[in-house]
Amino acid sequence: MKINRHFDEIQDSYLFAEVENRVAAYKKKYPEKSVIKLGIGDVTLPLPPAVVDAGVRAVRELGQSDTFRGYGPYRGYSFLTRAIAEYYARRGIALSEDEVFVSDGAKSDIGNILDLFDSDCTVLVPDPVYPVYVDTNLMQGRKIVYADATEANGFLPLPDESRRVDLIYICSPNNPTGAVYDRAGLKAWVDYALDCGAVILFDAAYEFFVGDARLPRSVYEIEGAERCAVEFCSLSKTAGFTGTRCGYTIVPHALGNLNKMWLRRQSTKFNGVSYAVQRMAEAVFGEEGMAQCAQNVAVYKQNAALISDTLTDMHIYHTGGINAPYIWLKCGMDSWEFFDRLLAKANVVGTPGAGFGRNGEGFFRLTAFNDCQSTAEAMRRFRRFFSA
Amino acid sequence: MKINRHFDEIQDSYLFAEVENRVAAYKKKYPEKSVIKLGIGDVTLPLPPAVVDAGVRAVRELGQSDTFRGYGPYRGYSFLTRAIAEYYARRGIALSEDEVFVSDGAKSDIGNILDLFDSDCTVLVPDPVYPVYVDTNLMQGRKIVYADATEANGFLPLPDESRRVDLIYICSPNNPTGAVYDRAGLKAWVDYALDCGAVILFDAAYEFFVGDARLPRSVYEIEGAERCAVEFCSLSKTAGFTGTRCGYTIVPHALGNLNKMWLRRQSTKFNGVSYAVQRMAEAVFGEEGMAQCAQNVAVYKQNAALISDTLTDMHIYHTGGINAPYIWLKCGMDSWEFFDRLLAKANVVGTPGAGFGRNGEGFFRLTAFNDCQSTAEAMRRFRRFFSA
Repeated sequence: MKINRHFDEIQDSYLFAEVENRVAAYKKKYPEKSVIKLGIGDVTLPLPPAVVDAGVRAVRELGQSDTFRGYGPYRGYSFLTRAIAEYYARRGIALSEDEVFVSDGAKSDIGNILDLFDSDCTVLVPDPVYPVYVDTNLMQGRKIVYADATEANGFLPLPDESRRVDLIYICSPNNPTGAVYDRAGLKAWVDYALDCGAVILFDAAYEFFVGDARLPRSVYEIEGAERCAVEFCSLSKTAGFTGTRCGYTIVPHALGNLNKMWLRRQSTKFNGVSYAVQRMAEAVFGEEGMAQCAQNVAVYKQNAALISDTLTDMHIYHTGGINAPYIWLKCGMDSWEFFDRLLAKANVVGTPGAGFGRNGEGFFRLTAFNDCQSTAEAMRRFRRFFSA
Repeated sequence: MKINRHFDEIQDSYLFAEVENRVAAYKKKYPEKSVIKLGIGDVTLPLPPAVVDAGVRAVRELGQSDTFRGYGPYRGYSFLTRAIAEYYARRGIALSEDEVFVSDGAKSDIGNILDLFDSDCTVLVPDPVYPVYVDTNLMQGRKIVYADATEANGFLPLPDESRRVDLIYICSPNNPTGAVYDRAGLKAWVDYALDCGAVILFDAAYEFFVGDARLPRSVYEIEGAERCAVEFCSLSKTAGFTGTRCGYTIVPHALGNLNKMWLRRQSTKFNGVSYAVQRMAEAVFGEEGMAQCAQNVAVYKQNAALISDTLTDMHIYHTGGINAPYIWLKCGMDSWEFFDRLLAKANVVGTPGAGFGRNGEGFFRLTAFNDCQSTAEAMRRFRRFFSA
């Protein structure tokens, strides 16, 4: 059996499993303790009513002869690609509908887009980072170089002009650090990519958390990006679609053959997103849906602000928490040791930074996706923990 | 930009677009003619009521705090993997639940499974064939050899023992020929694969059309298959899910590391199928759902039988139409010329065999997915066409 040997190069991902194991062991030993999880990367609020209504209607349509739908267009239904193009247009970004590809989530497309690139590409990935960027490239045998994200650059590394690369991953607002590039920062990356002939794979999964109008929510707010960047976005965090599964990818026509190649890839290895799910996604972009999504995200942002304010008050260095659902704090010790201490003394769970890369050591990720009461209680415990 | 140059090796797929163009041109010229399409590869009957009810319930659950679901298990929800394992158990095939992977359709998994194999594999593909098998391998630069399916072997080629290969595609019931392997035929392939150390990629998308108990519906009905075969199945044709998108892939533990590798691939480049769609799929495997699906498939099978009986009556050589939704007939001339004549003289649309490979020339595919009245009318026109 001639298997792909590059799979040997990827490590088994034990991060969240190990977190779960340690929490389970603690709870078994101390069943009376109330443990609060701020490690969750998943949303907790239910789908907005407008989205549910659209889903129910669509499922019922599929049960009637005159409204039944079979195979849909490979790019996604026009009602949805148009709604997405209009969503960008409202932010001043002109896209044609056929630059929009509906997907079952940003993660799938971020992995699958690599089918379009040569296996001897050199890939630039920030460290710390969402592990998917690294693993998907290792699986295909690509060489990875890292851009160090550190306290010194506020976890927003800029290009090293002396180095030539072919693919560049940028996630802003960032997972795990919550740091957000300003326009100047993104422009540096776009200019560098154009200079290298590199393609930026821009992960905009958290764009809906950006409230500050000075910060870009799309890479296409930067001049020239349409000639060097593919953008991935998701409704997971915008609209609570982590279990409903819908996202989209923008492949501009200005990117040479990539739009045509991606359509070829998707029409050969994918058959589109469920009709009902596309109708639910369409509802997200309607006036009612947008308002309801904003309400849910406001709850998470309030949690994020509370965490960030608490840390600021305690003079703990951190990034994120303002235009992002993640807070990345300096724990000043081995991040797994901090995890154990925080669990034992404060009964609060987070994610050790070491799990996101070499530069994550000494840092710790909290998320804003728990409910307000639990988040507030976790912050009271934090204060006691640090003052002890 | 270092793009994947193997994309240059795949041809643009003009088959169905060309069919559409010719039909549109004909209709423009003769708007009064009623054209019947027997070229459709898509289902036309609505989703079964049990499936619709499950979908509506599931979407509503997502709108309530206490029943909301976020990220699901990478393999699929246990309620569904269990239902699929039980579906196999009823046919005497023992699977463990974690050998079942829920997918958004057989096409995605048939393409994506190639991530697990070395790019220098030699791939055996029957000719004629579903074009996805060839294109997905060409995209990754693999060498393809063909197994000739011809009138001489009833479009069911057997292994050529003198040739060593690494991957083998089998689709039974077959698209486009409707031919179905018997147990002896499949056993020859399994024995050959075990001998070569090859992996069979078995496409069982049409298994629900097999009514003859002597014909295998799963490759795992053959001894030893669990050591050499991955099986792909889909609810597209079983339950009308072409637009709802759900399928499943069986990767037996007996297949070395492949089960673990596929889980790693899916957890890295996929995030599962929509919760509501998984609940709809679960309903397919319930008693009520199965009966309703069987009712719909009986309609298509009646169409298939009518087409096959008509051709038999006219002494036209064909395969399929009994345990398959496709009928593959010998048209005895250039298949595009036959297409044009059939459209002009009988106003019936089918698919030219040449579109499925070199051995498809001289043959023509009809499908059973139109309604009963139109199919019956098409057969009346067929009789007149051939007697003219």
